[in-house]
Amino acid sequence: MDAQRLYVLLEDFRSGRLTADDVVAEVSVPSFEDIGFAKVDHHRAIRKGFPEVVFGLGKTPEQVGRLAAALLERSDRLLVTKTTLEAYRAVCEAVPDAVFDEMSRTITVDRSVGGEPRPGVVVACAGTSDLPVAAEAAVTAEIMGCRVERVNDVGVAGIHRLIAEMPTIAGAEVVVVVAGMEGALASVVGGLVRAPVIAVPTSVGYGSSFDGLAALLAMLNSCAPGVSVVNIDNGFGAGYMAAMIVMGRDSRG
Amino acid sequence: MDAQRLYVLLEDFRSGRLTADDVVAEVSVPSFEDIGFAKVDHHRAIRKGFPEVVFGLGKTPEQVGRLAAALLERSDRLLVTKTTLEAYRAVCEAVPDAVFDEMSRTITVDRSVGGEPRPGVVVACAGTSDLPVAAEAAVTAEIMGCRVERVNDVGVAGIHRLIAEMPTIAGAEVVVVVAGMEGALASVVGGLVRAPVIAVPTSVGYGSSFDGLAALLAMLNSCAPGVSVVNIDNGFGAGYMAAMIVMGRDSRG
Amino acid sequence: MDAQRLYVLLEDFRSGRLTADDVVAEVSVPSFEDIGFAKVDHHRAIRKGFPEVVFGLGKTPEQVGRLAAALLERSDRLLVTKTTLEAYRAVCEAVPDAVFDEMSRTITVDRSVGGEPRPGVVVACAGTSDLPVAAEAAVTAEIMGCRVERVNDVGVAGIHRLIAEMPTIAGAEVVVVVAGMEGALASVVGGLVRAPVIAVPTSVGYGSSFDGLAALLAMLNSCAPGVSVVNIDNGFGAGYMAAMIVMGRDSRG
Amino acid sequence: MDAQRLYVLLEDFRSGRLTADDVVAEVSVPSFEDIGFAKVDHHRAIRKGFPEVVFGLGKTPEQVGRLAAALLERSDRLLVTKTTLEAYRAVCEAVPDAVFDEMSRTITVDRSVGGEPRPGVVVACAGTSDLPVAAEAAVTAEIMGCRVERVNDVGVAGIHRLIAEMPTIAGAEVVVVVAGMEGALASVVGGLVRAPVIAVPTSVGYGSSFDGLAALLAMLNSCAPGVSVVNIDNGFGAGYMAAMIVMGRDSRG
Amino acid sequence: MDAQRLYVLLEDFRSGRLTADDVVAEVSVPSFEDIGFAKVDHHRAIRKGFPEVVFGLGKTPEQVGRLAAALLERSDRLLVTKTTLEAYRAVCEAVPDAVFDEMSRTITVDRSVGGEPRPGVVVACAGTSDLPVAAEAAVTAEIMGCRVERVNDVGVAGIHRLIAEMPTIAGAEVVVVVAGMEGALASVVGGLVRAPVIAVPTSVGYGSSFDGLAALLAMLNSCAPGVSVVNIDNGFGAGYMAAMIVMGRDSRG
Amino acid sequence: MDAQRLYVLLEDFRSGRLTADDVVAEVSVPSFEDIGFAKVDHHRAIRKGFPEVVFGLGKTPEQVGRLAAALLERSDRLLVTKTTLEAYRAVCEAVPDAVFDEMSRTITVDRSVGGEPRPGVVVACAGTSDLPVAAEAAVTAEIMGCRVERVNDVGVAGIHRLIAEMPTIAGAEVVVVVAGMEGALASVVGGLVRAPVIAVPTSVGYGSSFDGLAALLAMLNSCAPGVSVVNIDNGFGAGYMAAMIVMGRDSRG
Amino acid sequence: MDAQRLYVLLEDFRSGRLTADDVVAEVSVPSFEDIGFAKVDHHRAIRKGFPEVVFGLGKTPEQVGRLAAALLERSDRLLVTKTTLEAYRAVCEAVPDAVFDEMSRTITVDRSVGGEPRPGVVVACAGTSDLPVAAEAAVTAEIMGCRVERVNDVGVAGIHRLIAEMPTIAGAEVVVVVAGMEGALASVVGGLVRAPVIAVPTSVGYGSSFDGLAALLAMLNSCAPGVSVVNIDNGFGAGYMAAMIVMGRDSRG
Amino acid sequence: MDAQRLYVLLEDFRSGRLTADDVVAEVSVPSFEDIGFAKVDHHRAIRKGFPEVVFGLGKTPEQVGRLAAALLERSDRLLVTKTTLEAYRAVCEAVPDAVFDEMSRTITVDRSVGGEPRPGVVVACAGTSDLPVAAEAAVTAEIMGCRVERVNDVGVAGIHRLIAEMPTIAGAEVVVVVAGMEGALASVVGGLVRAPVIAVPTSVGYGSSFDGLAALLAMLNSCAPGVSVVNIDNGFGAGYMAAMIVMGRDSRG
Repeated sequence: MDAQRLYVLLEDFRSGRLTADDVVAEVSVPSFEDIGFAKVDHHRAIRKGFPEVVFGLGKTPEQVGRLAAALLERSDRLLVTKTTLEAYRAVCEAVPDAVFDEMSRTITVDRSVGGEPRPGVVVACAGTSDLPVAAEAAVTAEIMGCRVERVNDVGVAGIHRLIAEMPTIAGAEVVVVVAGMEGALASVVGGLVRAPVIAVPTSVGYGSSFDGLAALLAMLNSCAPGVSVVNIDNGFGAGYMAAMIVMGRDSRG
Repeated sequence: MDAQRLYVLLEDFRSGRLTADDVVAEVSVPSFEDIGFAKVDHHRAIRKGFPEVVFGLGKTPEQVGRLAAALLERSDRLLVTKTTLEAYRAVCEAVPDAVFDEMSRTITVDRSVGGEPRPGVVVACAGTSDLPVAAEAAVTAEIMGCRVERVNDVGVAGIHRLIAEMPTIAGAEVVVVVAGMEGALASVVGGLVRAPVIAVPTSVGYGSSFDGLAALLAMLNSCAPGVSVVNIDNGFGAGYMAAMIVMGRDSRG
Repeated sequence: MDAQRLYVLLEDFRSGRLTADDVVAEVSVPSFEDIGFAKVDHHRAIRKGFPEVVFGLGKTPEQVGRLAAALLERSDRLLVTKTTLEAYRAVCEAVPDAVFDEMSRTITVDRSVGGEPRPGVVVACAGTSDLPVAAEAAVTAEIMGCRVERVNDVGVAGIHRLIAEMPTIAGAEVVVVVAGMEGALASVVGGLVRAPVIAVPTSVGYGSSFDGLAALLAMLNSCAPGVSVVNIDNGFGAGYMAAMIVMGRDSRG
Repeated sequence: MDAQRLYVLLEDFRSGRLTADDVVAEVSVPSFEDIGFAKVDHHRAIRKGFPEVVFGLGKTPEQVGRLAAALLERSDRLLVTKTTLEAYRAVCEAVPDAVFDEMSRTITVDRSVGGEPRPGVVVACAGTSDLPVAAEAAVTAEIMGCRVERVNDVGVAGIHRLIAEMPTIAGAEVVVVVAGMEGALASVVGGLVRAPVIAVPTSVGYGSSFDGLAALLAMLNSCAPGVSVVNIDNGFGAGYMAAMIVMGRDSRG
Repeated sequence: MDAQRLYVLLEDFRSGRLTADDVVAEVSVPSFEDIGFAKVDHHRAIRKGFPEVVFGLGKTPEQVGRLAAALLERSDRLLVTKTTLEAYRAVCEAVPDAVFDEMSRTITVDRSVGGEPRPGVVVACAGTSDLPVAAEAAVTAEIMGCRVERVNDVGVAGIHRLIAEMPTIAGAEVVVVVAGMEGALASVVGGLVRAPVIAVPTSVGYGSSFDGLAALLAMLNSCAPGVSVVNIDNGFGAGYMAAMIVMGRDSRG
Repeated sequence: MDAQRLYVLLEDFRSGRLTADDVVAEVSVPSFEDIGFAKVDHHRAIRKGFPEVVFGLGKTPEQVGRLAAALLERSDRLLVTKTTLEAYRAVCEAVPDAVFDEMSRTITVDRSVGGEPRPGVVVACAGTSDLPVAAEAAVTAEIMGCRVERVNDVGVAGIHRLIAEMPTIAGAEVVVVVAGMEGALASVVGGLVRAPVIAVPTSVGYGSSFDGLAALLAMLNSCAPGVSVVNIDNGFGAGYMAAMIVMGRDSRG
Repeated sequence: MDAQRLYVLLEDFRSGRLTADDVVAEVSVPSFEDIGFAKVDHHRAIRKGFPEVVFGLGKTPEQVGRLAAALLERSDRLLVTKTTLEAYRAVCEAVPDAVFDEMSRTITVDRSVGGEPRPGVVVACAGTSDLPVAAEAAVTAEIMGCRVERVNDVGVAGIHRLIAEMPTIAGAEVVVVVAGMEGALASVVGGLVRAPVIAVPTSVGYGSSFDGLAALLAMLNSCAPGVSVVNIDNGFGAGYMAAMIVMGRDSRG
Repeated sequence: MDAQRLYVLLEDFRSGRLTADDVVAEVSVPSFEDIGFAKVDHHRAIRKGFPEVVFGLGKTPEQVGRLAAALLERSDRLLVTKTTLEAYRAVCEAVPDAVFDEMSRTITVDRSVGGEPRPGVVVACAGTSDLPVAAEAAVTAEIMGCRVERVNDVGVAGIHRLIAEMPTIAGAEVVVVVAGMEGALASVVGGLVRAPVIAVPTSVGYGSSFDGLAALLAMLNSCAPGVSVVNIDNGFGAGYMAAMIVMGRDSRG
């Protein structure tokens, strides 16, 4: 709330063009709903372009259920990540149209009546064991309105598999690269494409992978430019970022 | 090179529409120039939209000078990062129009005759000591064709300074956030804006900042979605990513 | 035991005002009770202002039960932290008025006949998953005689929720800030309030949160002054520190 | 700014009791001064009880000089930490009454006309090599209005030296404990005193002290309650926290 | 695909010696089989001399079963590592001649009709707890065509046991050394033999072994030359490397 | 085997004073028994003064049973550490006089007909949760022939408990100090006693104790001289070392 | 020295076929020369196939000079690694034919009268800044008798440069891959070639490369089989290993 | 001060056998001398058997000089470790008989008129670069009254050099093993000798030695029993410990 805007508001208020309520509504901090253990951030969709997402880890099924119900009262879409079948059952009591995806461990609801999904996002994944994280990225971008192309099992140990998929990957506006172990796929893709690359290290591996640290450090040190990184196993964060990039093009580009 | 395109090439070759040279040119791997200690990647601009960037660290002034000269033979722009005054002097011998920026430690040449710079990039910086990294990000995005707005000294210890700059920040299409110490600025900005945030941890701090590790981990664990991270002190990487995002909107969005 | 006091004691002893027993009692090390596997520190309440607290982790239910009984023989309050329902059952056999709090995993007994609880402590918590640690902090300060105000779910991803609670937080004499992931809440609160902030990193998060290391490092590197830090998930330590600060004001300030 | 206060403001504005300027002044974010590379936070003293402190590391002498001059225009006290003789000389040009303390590497100015310094802070230091950090803590608390008692060289290798100083330490309202190597002094003092302990690990040591990591971890894991920790070598942070605790007792206790 | 070869191909095509299909077949990237969740790399045997190996960790039994069946359609050997009895059962449905080795947790199929196994590989193992990793190394080299001599329990705590086995070890063309704890065996063997040593750190140990980190670092810092290292517990990698070294001698040496 | 001794042997052999067997016996490497998965080091007792100890972690009950039986064929004492009740049952089949100690998780057999146990070892332990590791140290020193005094629960949070035990501790010839969390007990004891201190960090603690790393680093950085350290939770190592020190005094001092 | 051989020796000695000297010579430990601060290992060439190599780091020029002179008394080749111009000058006093290579920081002497160097080793290097380490690898393999082909600047950011060099790389019997930053080159080469790959991580990079840790972890976690790793910046170790592999083929393959 | 002793003192005081001063003198904490920046621990020799040692790192030459002078007023021996030539010059002003040893970086004074040095300590050192740390260990044990045998350059890369020195090493009552890089020498010696081994990791090495961490971890995880460890480069600590072990044998064994 900058001062100039406030002078205008006050003038409009004095002149009767605005009521006190109008001024308060604009000046006040954005509203949220306090449900005791949590404050539901209904303003998130306005601020960020998408409703608050429920991070399932460390929450009881009951908490997830209550958050889901509260969010859907003022939103037409819902995303719960890193969740469980138990939480899904708790959500279903109030939200019977909720969908559980076992691979990505997400709960989604989409009641929006939008048009066609926005293309441009490719999610490329190094190995079979990385699929759950890649799926989380894809589901996230999809619920945010994107159409996602998934390219699986293109790790650098057999680089011809990656090259065979280059037509798909090269056509992307943003590429999410999901890889564990040494995470080299991010650098190789980053060297080949014009689009920004969002790299997701995964905890796939053992020994000195140190639960994804090896892939994380490798991706942060990519010798190819145009690569940025999210947390280990954070498919959600990458899918969200990718959707922001392509959706922003239509709304503001 | 996919098979279908190759059948077409062969047909054109048999029919005489293409010479053997034409086919070879298209099928062959992209050319580069071998100057002994390095292979200058002239194809980079086609593949990535910007010529190869010279990473100055660990290269002798002579090597930087030779790379700069070789690159500018086929490109109208040059960027050298993390470089020194000595390297600049070596570059100047062959490239008298090179520019050295002391704050960002970059050498740039811009002989392009483009139109207006593309707006949309904001580089926000937590403290005075983070300025060199922020400057590297800004210079990078600028040489790639962007107009960059710089917002300095908006660390979260005095959050009203950040809020006062929100009109600028909220108008960005992509925000680069540069912060050392605890790196909290990335999360706070990430919670407030609709645009993707590229977070750059810096090595500013001491003790348990562990040369930027504290900020790096904080940024990777941002509770606000839409934040991705580059290497510690990697202003270049963030500026490059930001430019890719906004430039891509015009060319392909 | 300083020399001057000893001269006085000796004088009183020679004059008969004190017996040898009296001198020995004062000179000797403070007493404790040896119950075999442990030495119950009955002197703790005198030295520290609160009886010895039982750290439940790694102790058998029987050990907890015996320690609880021994401590309550000479104290009117008991606190067991990081404990289990099994330990609670063992305590109840000898201490039927013990109370188990599931959220904070504490056992408490309060037989004190004090006056009103001392206000001034606020416990602010970033997310729903951080609630158990915040509850441990609050229960600790309460058993030590404080009245605690709890502010939940004010993480920086939706900073307006924090700002809405600022009247409560700004009124505190000490603020305990509990946050996982990137732990940015401590810096933001630290920049806004006049009271000292005790920051508690939690192990909430995954991947590069490294079980709370990211939040710990962030809090230690807070750019806002007036923030000190306790161990990861150490709600007890923060609540204890907060109570010491406000209680000290009455007794000695 | 909560809604209810705003309705009152608007009513007062309509009735003429307040001008538009008055309303704007209260509603607007707190003011600061933009000096280009930095935003001087003049509001800090109101918000935190002490003016903004200049962190000298990574700033040029000129930047320190300009910040010092700008801050002293609206404040009667100045503190610059982790600074150099060169910066001091730059400060002196505009601020001839500035004082440089070589041991603590601080620059201070105190033009306040306050009463007696507030007693209650003890700074205890394990070894001779820890003195610079202890001095930084003491200077910080002093400039904030405290009288500080310093207890040097009481490391646990000769615990009788500590016990001899117990009368001083036990009389404190807050104890700052500064120790490198294994940092055991914090636990031992924490077990003996009733006052809160602010522990400062130092980088004194070698090999597996890992530049203060050993002391930091030890202090965070103190088995004595009532100990909280600041960053390695952060004497300033500990002194600031200590001053907040004792000063708050008078103003609000 | 280099240019000269392509001119030849084109000439042969124009002259009719080759069909378009022939050219495409040679120019195209090597083939693989897409089975949805994975791309079976049938070209691996040509490129690397051994078919793709299935890394069992993180794959469902069904996925392992399908990969095994797909691979054996075009190969006469199969190796699955770090697998389970459940996966073995899934494999057996389509591949009844599969063999499960409990010690090494491998599934193997060998339908090759080769001659004698190639001698020259010795796998030496420090302690009984390291046996599973040593067995993985041996099984891997065996399925690749080697005859492996296994030397168990020759850790340096009783160096005479190692010396007694020196005739066997000294006769090797390559020695795989498997050791946990401090991993000193690699250095000692490296100092005694003429053959290259492949060192495998294991996660055997506790406390500051940090799950194999101690052995890994020790082996990387071996003061004896001729030692290289694979990942912690990576018996497969060492066996593969050893087989490559000795097999290469016959085919190309 | 040095050359001079060998000339003597050869001369004695030629002259008939020694048989070929005699020479071989002296020249040969010490014997051991190969039981397939292990090489039983019967020579250990001669070389080290105590038979080979069985490290139970990672061995199957059957392996432990076979090793125990093999060792007792040529020795009158047995020690198995970090073992389980299942392993104990396997040992009992062949060794009915084996003893299982639940606290220390050891199996022992003592058929020696020695004299009085050698006094001089004190095992001091910081907290109740450290007891299993302290017990392992004590059992180890006892089976090696020492009489061990155990001092429990003397952590530095209540230093008067330690001081009360000083008569016992100060009388030791070697002190084993067992402590988790911040491990400060080692430094405090090291500063008070004349005897060497063997420090054992334990994994007791949580959060930034990082499974014993905090205590390990603290003990390695002890400001008191005369402290050396063994692995985290390695009660066995400390007890063994302590016994070597006091036993050596009698046999060779 | 096994017992059976010794019986034979003794028999031969008694019968006069061998003198006492002969027996001693065979039985004795291999000779070395004690020059005070060091023991020159003249037996190394017999045991390992190459004389002892002088590791220059941490040695004074005088020590290097004396070691060089001592070694060359019984050997025709010398290698000093990680050395300085000062050490070279000290070596030259006694060894005028020594050669200093500035890029690799090595001193070499080759007085051998061997035949042609053995081909088969390729050293591939990711970037210009990695050249010194690559040079150390090449010089090492060369002094051991190999002919080395060097392939520079083939980092994965421009993978076509690597593919263009594949004819050279694919013809190798062993490939040394030298790369800093994310070290992806090792995995990519490992996936493409039939020869074993020795990977050398370098400390090239900054920030979260952590002085080569990122590349080290990446290489240890290579998803391509047939890759083993040496210490960060250990070009010597890789060159030595590579030479052992190809030289062994001729002498024993 | 235990109670029984105090009753005796009081009785003696009442009866006149002791004055009040006598009682105070015995009851009071042991004396020390406060010289401002430090408290000289004159009681250390009584408590620990050797006067306080001056740790030179981080102390100014003046501080070292004053401490040295103060200590020698009541002691006949002095040891300053990790010091410099400048500090030595400052010491010499007041202590002309001080001796500086460049290799070990120690200052010593020995005015004691003792008998023969006590034999039994062997200091074994892996490589030439480890000599300074080994020298610090030896000098420390010597000033404490031991005769030390030094065994240099017996690293495990040429294990015959170690075996040749076994007669010396096996005769020790305590062995100090000094090694950098992978630190394997500690385990190998530990497996061969009957005496306790004090292992000193050194920072000799590069890359993944991480300034001695690799050797430290290796030594802590020694598979041979009877090995304990001191800090990286802490020759002093090892020498002190070794002297305590052998000296204790005479005085109390």
